[in-house]
Amino acid sequence: MKVQRVEMFVMPMDTPDDTTGLQKLADKGLIKPDSLVALCGKTDGSGFHDDWGRVLADSALRGWTAKFLNIPFDQVAKRVIFVLSGGCPGVITPHIVAVTRSWEEAPAAAAGGARHLVVGIAGSEPIAPEEVGRMGMIRKVAAGVRAAMADAGVTDPKDVHLVLVKVPGLTVGSIKDAESRGKTVVTHDPTFGVMGAGCYGNDGAALGVALALGEVPEAKLSDDVVRKNWDLYSSVAMTSSGGEKRHGEVLLFANSANSRSRLRIGHSATKDYIDAEGVRNALRSAGLEFKELPSEKDLSRLVHVFGKSVTPGSDIIRGQKITLLDDHNCYQIGKAVGGMLVASVTGRTMNYLSGGERNSHQGPPGGNVMAAIVRDPD
Amino acid sequence: MKVQRVEMFVMPMDTPDDTTGLQKLADKGLIKPDSLVALCGKTDGSGFHDDWGRVLADSALRGWTAKFLNIPFDQVAKRVIFVLSGGCPGVITPHIVAVTRSWEEAPAAAAGGARHLVVGIAGSEPIAPEEVGRMGMIRKVAAGVRAAMADAGVTDPKDVHLVLVKVPGLTVGSIKDAESRGKTVVTHDPTFGVMGAGCYGNDGAALGVALALGEVPEAKLSDDVVRKNWDLYSSVAMTSSGGEKRHGEVLLFANSANSRSRLRIGHSATKDYIDAEGVRNALRSAGLEFKELPSEKDLSRLVHVFGKSVTPGSDIIRGQKITLLDDHNCYQIGKAVGGMLVASVTGRTMNYLSGGERNSHQGPPGGNVMAAIVRDPD
Amino acid sequence: MKVQRVEMFVMPMDTPDDTTGLQKLADKGLIKPDSLVALCGKTDGSGFHDDWGRVLADSALRGWTAKFLNIPFDQVAKRVIFVLSGGCPGVITPHIVAVTRSWEEAPAAAAGGARHLVVGIAGSEPIAPEEVGRMGMIRKVAAGVRAAMADAGVTDPKDVHLVLVKVPGLTVGSIKDAESRGKTVVTHDPTFGVMGAGCYGNDGAALGVALALGEVPEAKLSDDVVRKNWDLYSSVAMTSSGGEKRHGEVLLFANSANSRSRLRIGHSATKDYIDAEGVRNALRSAGLEFKELPSEKDLSRLVHVFGKSVTPGSDIIRGQKITLLDDHNCYQIGKAVGGMLVASVTGRTMNYLSGGERNSHQGPPGGNVMAAIVRDPD
Amino acid sequence: MKVQRVEMFVMPMDTPDDTTGLQKLADKGLIKPDSLVALCGKTDGSGFHDDWGRVLADSALRGWTAKFLNIPFDQVAKRVIFVLSGGCPGVITPHIVAVTRSWEEAPAAAAGGARHLVVGIAGSEPIAPEEVGRMGMIRKVAAGVRAAMADAGVTDPKDVHLVLVKVPGLTVGSIKDAESRGKTVVTHDPTFGVMGAGCYGNDGAALGVALALGEVPEAKLSDDVVRKNWDLYSSVAMTSSGGEKRHGEVLLFANSANSRSRLRIGHSATKDYIDAEGVRNALRSAGLEFKELPSEKDLSRLVHVFGKSVTPGSDIIRGQKITLLDDHNCYQIGKAVGGMLVASVTGRTMNYLSGGERNSHQGPPGGNVMAAIVRDPD
Repeated sequence: MKVQRVEMFVMPMDTPDDTTGLQKLADKGLIKPDSLVALCGKTDGSGFHDDWGRVLADSALRGWTAKFLNIPFDQVAKRVIFVLSGGCPGVITPHIVAVTRSWEEAPAAAAGGARHLVVGIAGSEPIAPEEVGRMGMIRKVAAGVRAAMADAGVTDPKDVHLVLVKVPGLTVGSIKDAESRGKTVVTHDPTFGVMGAGCYGNDGAALGVALALGEVPEAKLSDDVVRKNWDLYSSVAMTSSGGEKRHGEVLLFANSANSRSRLRIGHSATKDYIDAEGVRNALRSAGLEFKELPSEKDLSRLVHVFGKSVTPGSDIIRGQKITLLDDHNCYQIGKAVGGMLVASVTGRTMNYLSGGERNSHQGPPGGNVMAAIVRDPD
Repeated sequence: MKVQRVEMFVMPMDTPDDTTGLQKLADKGLIKPDSLVALCGKTDGSGFHDDWGRVLADSALRGWTAKFLNIPFDQVAKRVIFVLSGGCPGVITPHIVAVTRSWEEAPAAAAGGARHLVVGIAGSEPIAPEEVGRMGMIRKVAAGVRAAMADAGVTDPKDVHLVLVKVPGLTVGSIKDAESRGKTVVTHDPTFGVMGAGCYGNDGAALGVALALGEVPEAKLSDDVVRKNWDLYSSVAMTSSGGEKRHGEVLLFANSANSRSRLRIGHSATKDYIDAEGVRNALRSAGLEFKELPSEKDLSRLVHVFGKSVTPGSDIIRGQKITLLDDHNCYQIGKAVGGMLVASVTGRTMNYLSGGERNSHQGPPGGNVMAAIVRDPD
Repeated sequence: MKVQRVEMFVMPMDTPDDTTGLQKLADKGLIKPDSLVALCGKTDGSGFHDDWGRVLADSALRGWTAKFLNIPFDQVAKRVIFVLSGGCPGVITPHIVAVTRSWEEAPAAAAGGARHLVVGIAGSEPIAPEEVGRMGMIRKVAAGVRAAMADAGVTDPKDVHLVLVKVPGLTVGSIKDAESRGKTVVTHDPTFGVMGAGCYGNDGAALGVALALGEVPEAKLSDDVVRKNWDLYSSVAMTSSGGEKRHGEVLLFANSANSRSRLRIGHSATKDYIDAEGVRNALRSAGLEFKELPSEKDLSRLVHVFGKSVTPGSDIIRGQKITLLDDHNCYQIGKAVGGMLVASVTGRTMNYLSGGERNSHQGPPGGNVMAAIVRDPD
Repeated sequence: MKVQRVEMFVMPMDTPDDTTGLQKLADKGLIKPDSLVALCGKTDGSGFHDDWGRVLADSALRGWTAKFLNIPFDQVAKRVIFVLSGGCPGVITPHIVAVTRSWEEAPAAAAGGARHLVVGIAGSEPIAPEEVGRMGMIRKVAAGVRAAMADAGVTDPKDVHLVLVKVPGLTVGSIKDAESRGKTVVTHDPTFGVMGAGCYGNDGAALGVALALGEVPEAKLSDDVVRKNWDLYSSVAMTSSGGEKRHGEVLLFANSANSRSRLRIGHSATKDYIDAEGVRNALRSAGLEFKELPSEKDLSRLVHVFGKSVTPGSDIIRGQKITLLDDHNCYQIGKAVGGMLVASVTGRTMNYLSGGERNSHQGPPGGNVMAAIVRDPD
């Protein structure tokens, strides 16, 4: 049978339009036009819904990829998934992760064998402004996730450890468009504020993941539960939204016995906003074996961490009050402190860390999803 | 001989003018008019040089203290030291620490005996705007630190583990005042920016501590080295400045064999901006004995952590670039991520964490001072 | 009959707790304990829902007033109305306006005589968190406005030119309180964002004014129209909200033939966000007679301007797009540009200018309420 | 002799990479590859030194221009001057101005004839980081301005009404570069703060203009006067700086009798920060004749306004204090209020308005340069 061999390359970006790292990989033959399946990363900029740094990065990376694949600019989305999360406040190094996969012929794996990384990608149908943060988005994202599972060759949702999704948000312009067609939108606030379209977009996508993976049954879902019933959530969704998007993009990571990759993924959740042990548990889940703290040797095997830092819905953490929920800069600061939480564990600043929104259907109430990818020892 | 018995009470403040915690302590007889020597803490607000939250807290706490001590409002500064650090971004719980000391008769301690906490307090002479961030401030703060050592009964600088200093900054008004008298000021930027008066104030004070404790010889000091020669620093200074201040206030913590306190203080420095081990080392220095991670029992003995989060002068951390130095919100975000670094270790959000300024003579280049106070086991 | 003689004193505040201007007035006998009816003004600070500058000002002014009236601090609200609007970005000088009125015996005015300023004050019943931005608040504010009209001796709503109202907003704490009692709140966003409690508070109060003055019939009002049906508005309401408030305060300005004041009030509305002519129309309405631009002599008669700068709901102004609605700092910048619009007309920076929220029931869609008070020529 | 015919096209930009307006002009034949000499405008984004919106706009416009002129991307700078000013807070519509000129044969103009618009363009030599805000930059910009005058065919500096200059600022990276070569830099603050590199860049460029035009004699210039001696200034310079620039670009506007343009330029200065009459004076200087306020017909002839809104060095405006100088968001708010000042006069939001820095050698102390371009009546 055909099995995947997945590789990941993590490179810093000096500016949002820096493609030198990708070019070097291409020059060395480490990424090839037919193996590149996804580019995901963190881009310098405000991180807000009108973050031009992310747009600049998207434009530069897409342009580079079009040349690399020798296809028109607007065909790139059909071949390579882009999940760029804007905003690197604090100790988050702007970076890009190139994900490649090649297919190799191999015998079907024996039951109980070691499981390694496989990835699946899919685009969703176009998502209209009136669907953002509602069942329309949830169902379209769920369909995309199912397609990505099929693409990864994974059937058991338990094997899925991380689903990155990028979906449309709302802008002043797209709200106007929807209303001119007689539609309503879920909110008039285009920001990542507590009632903002950025959050509704992220959370519609998260519930789409939860629906596809059976974490939440369809019967419990409706427009009304979005950003209201926090007991409904996905443990592996990391979603972000951007006003410039028109459809969803899904990048799914799983482990499979039918994989020739030398990488493994695992995930965990922090129990609350300051829970460094939750980050360490993600490392353990991916295969690092340590008791209290990972050693330098352990960390040398760590390929990447993907983490969220959703601001909790309560201003009480372990019995003590914080003022973050009332902070005008909550969105950026919430992301920044999450970056530090992860960096304090990994000993590096090049971590994928998104977040800042208040409350989310990504991860359990108060806690955050953390995923880690680890390389087999030599 | 007379020896000190020092106690510390750490209380959350619901708003900057919340004095209910202090009142409860007073009602229980835990603090008394003649034992209260200092109030220090973190206050909700912007943390900027024009942070009215800190002014509100100062006004409310000083008013409460005046009543408690039954003295006029403007006499409080002669009896009780106030070191309020504004700004609680992220996971820093606004709080106040009441420090009390009483004097007890005891025989002189034997050499080599256990050492416990003593405190010393002192005010400095008034510091004029033209002295801020210059030798004038350095010398006046140094004199204040020497007075505080004497007040603590400490002679060996090695016993000093933490010196909190609050000094004047510059405001548009005080700059105008200095220049109307034909004086120059060190900067025209009243902010905590990289060339801002807030930083010059903090750093003049830090070098004053370094001078008093012999960490930097006087011969190496001049106006020109301030915020230029980062190899000159104090390992135990934590300083902050406020435009509303007219003189310096010093609160010094040391260990002494001649102490009846059940508390001990220790300190360490982080080696860089994301070094959680540096925080743990402060806990170890104060007397907690653990190998990798402190246990819940260890943490139950931890009374308080005082930490800085000065943004490094370089944008490279462990070989990777961060964007914080170019961030318009660097000051608040730098403080916030420091708060998370400490919280990730202490498992609580009620830590004293100031910082956000870029570069400082507080702590070694790139690293930050961390001090911890631990209670003897029962 | 008893008629009012109203006087207004406009003073800069150097800091939020600056009461020196008030003290000077008191020392000169210009304000007396039994004539002071209101203090309103703009206070330095962030202007956000957690603006401690406004809290500091309220505390200092209330404390001064308590001493001046020789009554307990918590009785001040029964005698003097406080309407402090936080945030002075740009060219808005922090200031306080003391409003006094005395009663004089005078014959009833002949019909058609000159009309001069009268004021009315009232407090509302306590407004619970669950009532903020809903009919509960609307009705309680309307009752307050009717009481203030009666207090002013005014029966025709057409004589009312300005109603300042301060009402409670929502905080993380008060939301929690409401929900713990099984109540819902209108929003979970405590800010002045487009779906924020600050806006719902302001707009509930504005519709309360509109209801009391007959600008909007009760039949058209319901919870559902608040911040949705922008065709419902008051042309004379200027409202603000603060999380620290528990009940509403109303300060109503009108002209009456039965007045011994030498002041007159008028109002107008800007037709859009950049309409300086709308500001000039308010000056004309109050009695300044000029053709194109007011002369210096005209402006010397201008006592004060009260203006709003609500950000429009559309991002198109006179056919051209602005980016303000997508700006993270929309709230402060929207207030700041309004301050400049007024200052460009009045030639001074000491204007009462609140705003920054997006859309409002204060003034017509896109336009803003402007009121001016002018002194009779000598 | 050959004389210029200059035309200007002012177009909104929907996003920073919106080139549709340019394309329409090209499609209509209104701009041609050999007539396009400059693109200047305001771009959406933060306006800070790390504003990626401006970078995105530069990239998109340069790419479009390269295609339009059929030359390589990196050759565009030799043919077309780009002056993009980042940040459109408040009521500044993002827009681009295309400046074209063609050459026509005409007899030399008679003395005293009507004067019309001519433009000159020039690039400067590369400006090293160590030259930013110092004599190196001043001299190189001055040489560029002289070259631009020659290009415009103008010899009398009095005919010059506006000089737009874009120069390099400093970044963390370029500072590091300079210091690694043993050089010093004028400041370590890369921002537009009061001691920031953005301001030093802008002001070095402004003094370069002043030197070239004889507004300031060379004998009075030295590194020491930059951002210190505010009596030295240019009345026609509008400069901006960006970290991504390596050399200066100059776009000079003048009137000349030898011009076939139907446009005229004029300029004035505001006397202080809120002086709308100063804006009107610029309109009058350009040829609009009105007494108090321009009529709609007058404004229909107004092609564009270029204005600055430098925050004054003093916090007192017409005797009243403002808090802007202490405001963390001074840079954006200072720009925003300037935009409103101009819009309140022009009745439109599509004005070129840069500023926000504190104090400048652009315009007299406290005042700001305003230039206007007017079309001859039909």
